[in-house]
Amino acid sequence: MNDPIATGLRDALDGHYREIREEFRGQADPALLLGDPGASTQEQRERVTDQLGKIAALGHGRVGFPAAYGGTHDYGASCALFEMQGYGDLSLLVKGGVQFGLFGGAVARLGSARHHDKVLSGIMNAEILGSFAMTEIGHGSNVQRLETTITFDPATDELVVDSPTPSAAKTYIGNAAKDARMAVVFGQLRTPAGDSFAEYGVHAVLMDVRDGEGNPIKGVTIGDNGVKGGLPGVDNGTFSFDQVRIPREALLNKFADLDSDGTYHSDIANENARFFTMLGTLVRGRVCVGGGAASAGKKGLAIALRYGARRRQFEAPGAEQEIVVLDYLAHQRKLFPLLAKSYALTFAQNSVTETLQELHGTPLPDGQEHPKEAIRELETRVAGLKAVSTWHAIEALQTAREACGGAGFIAENQLTQARADVDVFATFEGDNTVLLQLVAKGLLTEYKEMFGDLAMADLAGLVTKQVAEGLVERTAGRAGLQRLRDIARGRDHESAMDDHGWQLSMFEQRADHALETVGKRLRKATKDNGFELFNDAQDHVLFAARTHVDRCVLEDSLEALEQMPDGDAKTLMGKVLSLYALSSIEQDKAWFLEHGRLNTSRSRQVTATVNQLCQELRPYVHSLVDGLGIPESLITAPIATGTPSTTFA
Amino acid sequence: MNDPIATGLRDALDGHYREIREEFRGQADPALLLGDPGASTQEQRERVTDQLGKIAALGHGRVGFPAAYGGTHDYGASCALFEMQGYGDLSLLVKGGVQFGLFGGAVARLGSARHHDKVLSGIMNAEILGSFAMTEIGHGSNVQRLETTITFDPATDELVVDSPTPSAAKTYIGNAAKDARMAVVFGQLRTPAGDSFAEYGVHAVLMDVRDGEGNPIKGVTIGDNGVKGGLPGVDNGTFSFDQVRIPREALLNKFADLDSDGTYHSDIANENARFFTMLGTLVRGRVCVGGGAASAGKKGLAIALRYGARRRQFEAPGAEQEIVVLDYLAHQRKLFPLLAKSYALTFAQNSVTETLQELHGTPLPDGQEHPKEAIRELETRVAGLKAVSTWHAIEALQTAREACGGAGFIAENQLTQARADVDVFATFEGDNTVLLQLVAKGLLTEYKEMFGDLAMADLAGLVTKQVAEGLVERTAGRAGLQRLRDIARGRDHESAMDDHGWQLSMFEQRADHALETVGKRLRKATKDNGFELFNDAQDHVLFAARTHVDRCVLEDSLEALEQMPDGDAKTLMGKVLSLYALSSIEQDKAWFLEHGRLNTSRSRQVTATVNQLCQELRPYVHSLVDGLGIPESLITAPIATGTPSTTFA
Repeated sequence: MNDPIATGLRDALDGHYREIREEFRGQADPALLLGDPGASTQEQRERVTDQLGKIAALGHGRVGFPAAYGGTHDYGASCALFEMQGYGDLSLLVKGGVQFGLFGGAVARLGSARHHDKVLSGIMNAEILGSFAMTEIGHGSNVQRLETTITFDPATDELVVDSPTPSAAKTYIGNAAKDARMAVVFGQLRTPAGDSFAEYGVHAVLMDVRDGEGNPIKGVTIGDNGVKGGLPGVDNGTFSFDQVRIPREALLNKFADLDSDGTYHSDIANENARFFTMLGTLVRGRVCVGGGAASAGKKGLAIALRYGARRRQFEAPGAEQEIVVLDYLAHQRKLFPLLAKSYALTFAQNSVTETLQELHGTPLPDGQEHPKEAIRELETRVAGLKAVSTWHAIEALQTAREACGGAGFIAENQLTQARADVDVFATFEGDNTVLLQLVAKGLLTEYKEMFGDLAMADLAGLVTKQVAEGLVERTAGRAGLQRLRDIARGRDHESAMDDHGWQLSMFEQRADHALETVGKRLRKATKDNGFELFNDAQDHVLFAARTHVDRCVLEDSLEALEQMPDGDAKTLMGKVLSLYALSSIEQDKAWFLEHGRLNTSRSRQVTATVNQLCQELRPYVHSLVDGLGIPESLITAPIATGTPSTTFA
Repeated sequence: MNDPIATGLRDALDGHYREIREEFRGQADPALLLGDPGASTQEQRERVTDQLGKIAALGHGRVGFPAAYGGTHDYGASCALFEMQGYGDLSLLVKGGVQFGLFGGAVARLGSARHHDKVLSGIMNAEILGSFAMTEIGHGSNVQRLETTITFDPATDELVVDSPTPSAAKTYIGNAAKDARMAVVFGQLRTPAGDSFAEYGVHAVLMDVRDGEGNPIKGVTIGDNGVKGGLPGVDNGTFSFDQVRIPREALLNKFADLDSDGTYHSDIANENARFFTMLGTLVRGRVCVGGGAASAGKKGLAIALRYGARRRQFEAPGAEQEIVVLDYLAHQRKLFPLLAKSYALTFAQNSVTETLQELHGTPLPDGQEHPKEAIRELETRVAGLKAVSTWHAIEALQTAREACGGAGFIAENQLTQARADVDVFATFEGDNTVLLQLVAKGLLTEYKEMFGDLAMADLAGLVTKQVAEGLVERTAGRAGLQRLRDIARGRDHESAMDDHGWQLSMFEQRADHALETVGKRLRKATKDNGFELFNDAQDHVLFAARTHVDRCVLEDSLEALEQMPDGDAKTLMGKVLSLYALSSIEQDKAWFLEHGRLNTSRSRQVTATVNQLCQELRPYVHSLVDGLGIPESLITAPIATGTPSTTFA
């Protein structure tokens, strides 16, 4: 790439994991990474299974596994790699995510040597394919209420896995319908206690689901979820268990174990705390899902922008040639604010990726532990960023499709399959709305309270002010941001619209006030009115969560901007981030007006400035697209590459 | 249906064409009307072709064709029927729309007896399948610039159809890839004039594209657009013409004809006027597309609401049973405002359907003609409603999908295929953004100016005030609305939020002010700055168009409400329409605040009232869903019917 601006932008976006991204760009093979929209479900599944094996052969499965088993044990790198794979077929991405991330990650993080010795190498090589069997028909979001039971039988020293009701069946499980030989199965662990059972909450076991010939093992019924709205190459299916007996040692015992006499041990006494600690170790899945979706969104925008910069339609009066559609303000307003948000979200994604590696991938000496608060804060940020990133990707691909008109609807132009595939990213690894509530809860609750009952109504009656202030202090500690903030302080009604300090101040005021309001409302809760009070405030709760994420995204972005070398790329990035900030303020204009943070004249100026920034970015569209760093070999859309086809002349 | 409220709602929504809707409900056969998501493209195409023939055998193709050829010639009824078919598979809907509406409609409305005698009967019976070949690779929205040429050759008394460039190829043409034997082909008509040609603008010819054995006729190259983002059963493809010779009489000659000596005749002297008159006669296509999409959206909401009223997730503290998800405010806010908009849009759809029948389907005695102003106004309304309805349907299906979580992503639950199919409804029959600009143009321009250059920059410098006032006068003429308006007048800051007169006044103020602002800005245009001025105002132009449509929708809805018999259904409908109105005001809160139409306290009250209305509608959810009048036989989603499956226990 000979465009220094594009190079500067890309280097900034690449961040800490530039090397692994560059390596991927250098070798990204379309035959290995792209799909074949329109092939039958069976063909898609076979193609993806085949590609998965080839990717494993390249060693891509090893990133993020323990070094002792041949892995490279870089958690952050595995997220960066996942992001890069997000520029290819998303069925393959998700299939790999199920195999190496969910299934393999659960074995690695929840299990111990007795499991690792047996399967990790086979998992990395994709010789042992497996499922992550958590979701049930009856419970997707509220997984603490799973119905599957895992009952210890002291007579045989076995665990008995059972689906007691139809709604206990595991469903939407990736790898289940066709490929999984093993599965990590979540259920309620219990041991006999007199006429009844002692209950320990949700735990996971590693078990076979198919025999060497691919048939379900006795007691396991496997179903097929059939055709889906996307991800046709992923064989989602169901598992039902009829009193399936497995050895006691199948329990993934990192956080809890059972003795042969049925005695239960765990270092974490509280059942909730234990469950959320287990889930917390799997947070990487959410980091990956957000990052992978973000890549798909970027690719969609890149295709639409390249086409928009080429396509002409309607002539100005007196002109002979028609106007390039990207010269229309309406077209710019469709695409540039989304592009700016893609840039900003990348910096936030880099930030959580690096923090993940710091906290999950970097053991401290002498058995020291990373502070629990930092770990919880990471989980909150990841939950919020996953929700915001996946919704953004959906919107970006949808807008890109429409912006390309009929050509956008033809599969060869690489928008429709990705759009269909990315849809469920808003649902899996946590429904976005539920995740935003988790963010609000994380903000509202003292961290130790996180280990209380996660039922949503529990948000009520919690101390908020201290937490809000704690967060402000934390972010205020970043020197660069503090300088920006100081310059802007107290001049809200006279700052220039492109003053990043003012933008940051607007984001902070929005987030802080939203959180305070929710806190005040919920503080009135009693045991009897808790649900109603929470429910009436639910839109505020979601607003508080979303605006908190927005604030984090802008902070991370402005920090990254500070670190860029002076020059044209930095100047352009500054405009991109202003567009991100002002588009966000524009969307919440009503809030800023209602709360006296903008007067009507400045409110109109926000819109005028968004328009102006779109027009200022227009001449740099190719640098901005190239700056995203999408492997060119994976962009094959005729409308973006100029290859003649039935959709491009 | 034994629910009198649901019956009352349904009767109101059914409107004038209740009979044809009831008949359809009584006979809606899932085997005939539903699709099979996940089948291969080839299977889908074959299934749809087969279903098309069966529908034609039922006589559904006859509605809307001249009685002299066996049709029933009720234009409005053909739209109502199309709406009902929109509850079935959308590939079939679109295939039928291409055959009977676009292809058949063009022959009927642009041709004359020489064409009708030859093909109309075969078109209605689906014995002669055909295409409507307008769009080219290079021109989709700006169809006045089509490149295909239709050149008269006096030596042989023939027309020569030719694609002079690659971008002149017809593309995205329904029926082309597999089935069409004939096509209505649009191109630039010209006759030899010395060394050059006399040009007459875009005209249409009726020609063969395949021979009796299904092979392309000589000179016609047929291509396949292949896999698309939806509508897999529609065989979209391409036509290229290499000097294809057809008889002079192939010209569809309702509005213009050629003599054998090459003399050109038309009653409409102006080339633009002629072209837009031709297009105007085809306005039914847009009516149908908006109505069909709206039906798909309603079905999606119905499925999500029924599931939401049954699905439980998360328990309130102290409660044993989990909470029904539709009891969460966030879930209500996702779905009820969309449902309310679906109700309101139905009334607007009924209004344009009836007007269409009045103006296009009801000849006046003694060769009198319907007033041109009324015809143009209808075209403007149809353009706007098509844009708003199709975008709404996309949003409704998308939201329904997400609201159903993983279950929503599984094809058997009938959301994903419809969501994918409906996507392109925002593009075909006019790109929505371009259509909204057409609406603005229609409002800004004296009707006779409509016949000027349609280039978008031409909006500039036109008299607006009179037109805006003219519109207000027109709608003020409706007695019921006038009464509402009088009661509310002058009390903007004290009216109750559920006062329909106040709501209407807010909608009117928004639309009128938006239009005035655009008019003032564009009046400054000169020949040199026209495009820039227009372009800088493009967001205002789109806002003016959209708010005009909103106003029309509310007017039509409140009129329909007035006509309902007093009772519970009417009371509930009143709340539904308040929710529609207040949700719309809430979305534009910033505008109302900026322009002093809401103070901050009333602005917050709007949101509080939206929340309250959602909760008030909650107990009536089943009546509200049943009231939509969707044929129950076409709702097969296990999550909506309670049938056990891999997604519902």
